Amino acid sequence: MGFSLMRNQKFMPTIKHLLIISIAINAGLLLKLLHHEHEWAGLLGPDINGKNEVRLVKDVLHKAKPATDQYVNLDRGDPTMYEVYWMQMGDKTTLVLSGWQSISYFSDTKNHCWFLEPGFANAVTRLHNLVGNAQTRNYHIVVGTGSTQLFQAALYALSPSSAPEPMSIVSAAPFYSSYPLIIDCLKSGLYKWKGDASKYNKDDPYIELVTSPNNPDGSIRQAVVNGSGGILVHDLAYYWPQYTPISFQANHDIMLFTVSKCTGHAGIRIGWALVKDKEVAKKMTKFIEISSIGVSKDSQLRAAKILDVIADTYEHTEKFDKATPFFHYIYNEMAKRWRQLRSAVSKGQTFSLPDFPVEKCNFIGQRFGTQPAFAWLKCEKSIDDCEGFLKKHKILTRSGTHFGSSENYVRISLISHKEEYDEFIRRLSLLSSMSSPHE
Amino acid sequence: MGFSLMRNQKFMPTIKHLLIISIAINAGLLLKLLHHEHEWAGLLGPDINGKNEVRLVKDVLHKAKPATDQYVNLDRGDPTMYEVYWMQMGDKTTLVLSGWQSISYFSDTKNHCWFLEPGFANAVTRLHNLVGNAQTRNYHIVVGTGSTQLFQAALYALSPSSAPEPMSIVSAAPFYSSYPLIIDCLKSGLYKWKGDASKYNKDDPYIELVTSPNNPDGSIRQAVVNGSGGILVHDLAYYWPQYTPISFQANHDIMLFTVSKCTGHAGIRIGWALVKDKEVAKKMTKFIEISSIGVSKDSQLRAAKILDVIADTYEHTEKFDKATPFFHYIYNEMAKRWRQLRSAVSKGQTFSLPDFPVEKCNFIGQRFGTQPAFAWLKCEKSIDDCEGFLKKHKILTRSGTHFGSSENYVRISLISHKEEYDEFIRRLSLLSSMSSPHE
Repeated sequence: MGFSLMRNQKFMPTIKHLLIISIAINAGLLLKLLHHEHEWAGLLGPDINGKNEVRLVKDVLHKAKPATDQYVNLDRGDPTMYEVYWMQMGDKTTLVLSGWQSISYFSDTKNHCWFLEPGFANAVTRLHNLVGNAQTRNYHIVVGTGSTQLFQAALYALSPSSAPEPMSIVSAAPFYSSYPLIIDCLKSGLYKWKGDASKYNKDDPYIELVTSPNNPDGSIRQAVVNGSGGILVHDLAYYWPQYTPISFQANHDIMLFTVSKCTGHAGIRIGWALVKDKEVAKKMTKFIEISSIGVSKDSQLRAAKILDVIADTYEHTEKFDKATPFFHYIYNEMAKRWRQLRSAVSKGQTFSLPDFPVEKCNFIGQRFGTQPAFAWLKCEKSIDDCEGFLKKHKILTRSGTHFGSSENYVRISLISHKEEYDEFIRRLSLLSSMSSPHE
Repeated sequence: MGFSLMRNQKFMPTIKHLLIISIAINAGLLLKLLHHEHEWAGLLGPDINGKNEVRLVKDVLHKAKPATDQYVNLDRGDPTMYEVYWMQMGDKTTLVLSGWQSISYFSDTKNHCWFLEPGFANAVTRLHNLVGNAQTRNYHIVVGTGSTQLFQAALYALSPSSAPEPMSIVSAAPFYSSYPLIIDCLKSGLYKWKGDASKYNKDDPYIELVTSPNNPDGSIRQAVVNGSGGILVHDLAYYWPQYTPISFQANHDIMLFTVSKCTGHAGIRIGWALVKDKEVAKKMTKFIEISSIGVSKDSQLRAAKILDVIADTYEHTEKFDKATPFFHYIYNEMAKRWRQLRSAVSKGQTFSLPDFPVEKCNFIGQRFGTQPAFAWLKCEKSIDDCEGFLKKHKILTRSGTHFGSSENYVRISLISHKEEYDEFIRRLSLLSSMSSPHE
């Protein structure tokens, strides 16, 4: 009918015709939009092991509370607490990687650290400048497969290759439980674990590992050995404002950081070192070249994106509607968890926790005490084996013995999923208020 | 006006009103669509170091031919040849990663290799079953930061922790130049590099590294030491149909593979081991846990996607229009490059190349000789220092001395960008046909 109309008459569109055309255009645009959404879902679908986005979101937001007879596992410092923040950020941190990316081994042939992605280096510098926790000017950045690999790279770079005896490596107890394992894993002739730095009194060369805030006990640390031949490596994994006041801009010779404890992305396996001496940075790079021919580009690109979004939550607030900027959000969460923990512990005399001095944080703009990622809990009264006692009550922690300390202590992760943490607090409160904890 | 109209009269929409509403909806939908496109471009933009997709494509497809006075660098085995294939595949291999992915350290708590992404394990099994190059049934998969980390994990797992002497590690010359560097890097008390396997004749325990096809010379290899206490580690990085006929399904105790030389994605840093013995697999996992707390999830997800697309080019050909399936495409490219190389070498008596036996490939379905990723070129006549001679003519290669062989040989990468390779062939042809190469 329409066709014959057009053939036989000069066609003059009426408002009615225009309406029909307009509705048709509407339908077309709607279809295109639906197709867009579909493509999006399709891309996400197969990429994440068959789970689709909706299911993933559900998994994270509705993580099941552990059943009463299930263990609550706070032995490892798995930073799953961070998932909720990144889910709330929606697609702002989404990264699209094309099939032809990450072919070459090389990221920047002009840099001594040839496998360092320039975008990642920029993001690291930008974030330190924003937070003010470490100097980056005149420092060399070395990227590693987590700070674990960088820590080994530093030991390799700092130990002479032809000394008669292996270099002594020490750290003040309680020290990070993985240090002895990593250092002595291959029985290296270059270096050797010598334990508690406060008991080390030889005049020979040594490397002292200074972890600040400390894992496991959260203390703010400085070197303890008073020797002449000492080299310091600073592990600053937790020197971020969600955990401790940023009271000074660190400028040590070698400073190690990791994405895992800064943004919560432990599965990305990316860390970085800020290194003053160019030759040391080169030797660290050499170690990473030998041990893994560089570091995943994909992980570096993801880390760069995430660090940049964190900086954007402060420097481009207009992009984020009313979302709380990153460090403030996590700072509040950590503060809440420490309040819950101290309240549970104060219900009785069964447990005790360390106290931390209050300081002004130049970044958060407030005074507060360190609120570490781990609690260093002491069992009081007649409980000797604190880990065993908590395990009997379905709470898994790590005994002080692993950290060069006594079995009266345990390390407890404070950065797991909320549901898990709440259940832990419920159980700890009950134990804390029992008159006789052995019942 | 509209307001007073509605207040004073009962509003009856006319066709004119409907048209206005419809046009408004059109405008809204159009804006939303434009916003969609914008978001998409925005996602791609900053993620790849400020380059946008279009520019990247241009960079790869129009890689500049090296100028006559520039070095052609074929020292390293950087597999940039593969970029063109993956560009041609467009968005079929695109991966989208959300901001909340890769938070936890753990990928599969039920697997002894707890950091192994199930999707990656599936893709590895699927590809081996398709190609028929290695058995996977009853094998344990361990993922590593490239096969370099897995190789160290294997040495750690196979060397007794309390032997009086370090385990001897050998490999037949010419051997992969990185073996001695990696093995002796930390002066381990667990194991020690003992050089050429064909010269090893002690009765003590040893580990023999069998690389087949071999890097640098492409030979098909079996163990050469005839000792009683030997353990074998098979490095099968190049046992793929683009490089050599797949004439049998390998079923050795420990087999190492890497994404770098299979798909060309060296920057992803992912390798895998197929391990028969569960306890060995567990100890390898332990090493990776200690040395880097697992392996990048992002890289595993990318590798899974790429391996799955390769299998799809054979098993779901309908998705790929008329694109050549992966291994056939690269096989053809390697065949072409070897023809070019042999033709250049045959122009005179300056150089020679090894010959390879012709065999039936069960996968490609044809008979052909190995066409390795590296050429093991010999300088004939009076040229002693082959690397130095080629360097003088602006071709960078790696001297035979690094591989436990003589300086008459060099290793040359055949898997670089086409433009670079073509320029290399041009220069080599000229040298080859010169009557006196010293001029």
